[in-house]
Amino acid sequence: MGLETGSIRIGVIGGGQLARMMVPPAIHLGLRISVLAETEGSSAERAADVVGDYRDPETVYAFADTVDVVTFDHEHVPQEILHELERRGVAVHPRPGALQFAQDKILMREKLGELGVPVPAWAAVSDAAELQRFITEHGGRAVVKTARGGYDGKGVRVVSDAAEVRDWFTALAEDGHGGQLLVEELVDFTRELSQLVARRPSGETRTWPVVETIQRDGVCAEVIAPAPVATPATLDEAARIGAIVAAGVEVTGVLAVEMFETRDGRVLVNELAMRPHNSGHFSIEGSVTSQFEQHLRAVADLPLGDTRMTAPAAVMVNVLGGPAEGPMPVRYAAALAAHPEAKIHSYDKQPRPGRKVGHVTVVGDDLAAVRAAAQAAAAAFD
Amino acid sequence: MGLETGSIRIGVIGGGQLARMMVPPAIHLGLRISVLAETEGSSAERAADVVGDYRDPETVYAFADTVDVVTFDHEHVPQEILHELERRGVAVHPRPGALQFAQDKILMREKLGELGVPVPAWAAVSDAAELQRFITEHGGRAVVKTARGGYDGKGVRVVSDAAEVRDWFTALAEDGHGGQLLVEELVDFTRELSQLVARRPSGETRTWPVVETIQRDGVCAEVIAPAPVATPATLDEAARIGAIVAAGVEVTGVLAVEMFETRDGRVLVNELAMRPHNSGHFSIEGSVTSQFEQHLRAVADLPLGDTRMTAPAAVMVNVLGGPAEGPMPVRYAAALAAHPEAKIHSYDKQPRPGRKVGHVTVVGDDLAAVRAAAQAAAAAFD
Repeated sequence: MGLETGSIRIGVIGGGQLARMMVPPAIHLGLRISVLAETEGSSAERAADVVGDYRDPETVYAFADTVDVVTFDHEHVPQEILHELERRGVAVHPRPGALQFAQDKILMREKLGELGVPVPAWAAVSDAAELQRFITEHGGRAVVKTARGGYDGKGVRVVSDAAEVRDWFTALAEDGHGGQLLVEELVDFTRELSQLVARRPSGETRTWPVVETIQRDGVCAEVIAPAPVATPATLDEAARIGAIVAAGVEVTGVLAVEMFETRDGRVLVNELAMRPHNSGHFSIEGSVTSQFEQHLRAVADLPLGDTRMTAPAAVMVNVLGGPAEGPMPVRYAAALAAHPEAKIHSYDKQPRPGRKVGHVTVVGDDLAAVRAAAQAAAAAFD
Repeated sequence: MGLETGSIRIGVIGGGQLARMMVPPAIHLGLRISVLAETEGSSAERAADVVGDYRDPETVYAFADTVDVVTFDHEHVPQEILHELERRGVAVHPRPGALQFAQDKILMREKLGELGVPVPAWAAVSDAAELQRFITEHGGRAVVKTARGGYDGKGVRVVSDAAEVRDWFTALAEDGHGGQLLVEELVDFTRELSQLVARRPSGETRTWPVVETIQRDGVCAEVIAPAPVATPATLDEAARIGAIVAAGVEVTGVLAVEMFETRDGRVLVNELAMRPHNSGHFSIEGSVTSQFEQHLRAVADLPLGDTRMTAPAAVMVNVLGGPAEGPMPVRYAAALAAHPEAKIHSYDKQPRPGRKVGHVTVVGDDLAAVRAAAQAAAAAFD
């Protein structure tokens, strides 16, 4: 690993804002980081030593030869490539055997079932008739998801009639599940929670406080840390589930377990992400050890850091870029002048409607004041 | 400045750890940063787009052409080059008219006198006889400094006989002061303080809490924030002096004013630095806005951030590299495991005796506990 001779070299596949935000803690820790980015001008351009396609095996193998450990900004690298990397002796974290559960929602649901973790009622359905039966049995509406490739509301539809996803059955007939879709009950939830966990290859595990995530149009809009839940039992249950999942799938690096708190007091797992996650951006300022630093420590198999909050409350608000705005710095002067306490993060991305181009975090003692400040500072970029 | 059209490009002359630590906040703020480093493999290598000699005018002018504003990791760029940059329309911060007072200790003492700021008794002496007279008049011992080029104890000698600096008179006969040396009374101080100030071209100024700096062998060993002084009047006086100096020299960027608290309760200015400074490293975790982020904001003429502490106490301990140790990461696993609350910073430099190769900061509620933790974590690298 280079631990005995010098700096550890970490290679990140994917050049988005998650890779970008790994660079600051790598600099502070004295780790070397390089990024395999899809395009020139990507968010992690600072560290984008290599530009290339992560679906091209030779590109990935050549990149891996230059580093001590390979990790990820996204979960899209094909399993065949990941397994071949391990056959070649490359340290890959998270390992393909864990990553498959973040890549495939049907495998994930099966695994969570094995682990005894509470999930919404679900089925893998092969045709419209099976789907319609599930919808009818679960109140006339249900959530349909493609097993692969969905994120931020993509690959997810709420339907009342199987015909509404006929295109997916057709398009996915050739995939690993033979066209199967995942269908789930529409959960009557009071709020969405996220439990971040970091786990080293040795098994050392640290969890952050459970946070509340507020979605708008299927995209994370705001994160409140810690989550202002109705009862402490909910936090305990979320933390318990996070620990079971992290150990059960043997994740290495950061795992985000997204959950519903139901109206009747249960906690159900919705999604898994095996990388730093939007619900953990608050931790850059809000935790002693950020999710980005912790991910690097975990994949480099270094001891994990303290995850306590640095203040009683932290709120993160995403900046979702509209078309006419230009890059975030256009509005910087006004936003910084009005909100000296706000930490403004720009991903240096060209704006597109709904695109995550940055975020704002405020940390402090009083949740209401912190939240109002974070929302106001982010609104400067609307 | 690019504010209206996209990201501001900041060029840093000098590739040491100060430039290196400007990179993380540049990434977070979405600013583009590039570094003119002296050598390949410098501490700021991550951002070292250009390697070249800062004393070579054409190298500096070509570098300046690629950025919107030029700033510095050190104060050694010659005045002629700085003035020519300004004649060419380049934004240079701090400006040469301010920087001269950090480059030349005799000019600095003259300027502080003009500003009415309390300083130790001093003289500019041209020969051994003048120096001996000062020594005799000030208790038989005095501090002699070269006007230029000193830092971290270099260019500073405590002497009781003028003969002890005969080599300096000879060597410096050709310099701007015709061989003059600065001599100062040996101040009977109880502690050393540092006041960090940031100032924008517009004049907007923000100060951090006054810190105590603890030197060993003329090198900063430890910084305690805020300074545990005997009376609040000392803090007020240090802050007052910092504000007078910042406005008086019209600094842009971060200014560190190093001061003595004397046994009889006065505060005297010792040194000035016009860049982020070792006494401000605590602010990365200990302040809402770090000195590195603030320096970027100031030199880019963006509004300044909140400088409040994130916790009641922060302690920074330097890691001074011995010869037999190898790079810091060799000791990482043990240090991180024993001190999950410590923030360990490695500058990715090869160790040499006494060389600053990194630092450790701990932040918390109880100063004694915080200090013990920071010292213990740093000691892991001894």
